[in-house]
Amino acid sequence: MKWLDAVNWNPDGLVPVIAQEGDTGTVLTQAWMNREALERTATTLEAHYWSRSRRRLWRKGEASGHVQKVREIRLDCDNDAILLIVEQTGGIACHTGRHRCFFQRLEDGAWRVVEPVLKDPQSIYGKSDHGKEPLKGRRPAGDDHGTGNG
Amino acid sequence: MKWLDAVNWNPDGLVPVIAQEGDTGTVLTQAWMNREALERTATTLEAHYWSRSRRRLWRKGEASGHVQKVREIRLDCDNDAILLIVEQTGGIACHTGRHRCFFQRLEDGAWRVVEPVLKDPQSIYGKSDHGKEPLKGRRPAGDDHGTGNG
Repeated sequence: MKWLDAVNWNPDGLVPVIAQEGDTGTVLTQAWMNREALERTATTLEAHYWSRSRRRLWRKGEASGHVQKVREIRLDCDNDAILLIVEQTGGIACHTGRHRCFFQRLEDGAWRVVEPVLKDPQSIYGKSDHGKEPLKGRRPAGDDHGTGNG
Repeated sequence: MKWLDAVNWNPDGLVPVIAQEGDTGTVLTQAWMNREALERTATTLEAHYWSRSRRRLWRKGEASGHVQKVREIRLDCDNDAILLIVEQTGGIACHTGRHRCFFQRLEDGAWRVVEPVLKDPQSIYGKSDHGKEPLKGRRPAGDDHGTGNG
């Protein structure tokens, strides 16, 4: 489709995506889409992303229920970044159980966590890895931030 | 510095950056930083980016005067995306003379321009290429969107 062709996909066939909460203006997440993810997002009006770590399409909220309902899809001036305006189901966008992923702020030369955990990730995903959603980023599972993102 | 080492730089040594206007919540721009750009941004509290097309550091507003004064620097859960909360000098973040770069909205299978040009880019940058700021993206100059970004 012509509107998909207009996107300036990177050499890996991806485009960076920003998810912003419509009602609050909060920037929730930065993730990635391939062509199929963007097409499905536009068709279903639920955010779909490409997981670079697991190399698979991923419907946001598929494990957690924390679906992002899409109100608007925007493209920037260079056609190489997407902005989604969303409603965040459950009020939790981050796999750590926080409202949003940008919870670390630079203060006096250190990153400090400045937003609370609203829900224990174990109660979102269960204790095992089974059913967890893929990482949005490149970092492998096993560190503080790498256990999922849904 | 330790806080710079915490960032999960991509294989090209870059990290995607979102600039959000503090007073309005508007997502202005998506751009890229290398380590030096992030360090200078934190030191000067003015946004510095890495231009991938011209392969050089670029102080936002260096040609246009449309500097981004930085109130907050945030990092996401995977340490691979940065969010800046900024004051946008002149109220224009986009090289097209618009308030922000995300001025195209998907409507009925087409990208439509939904935000006005506030200032003629020629009056921002002059008629020649001289003094223009680098592209933030990969697209070469010469198309509608590729004449600069400042």
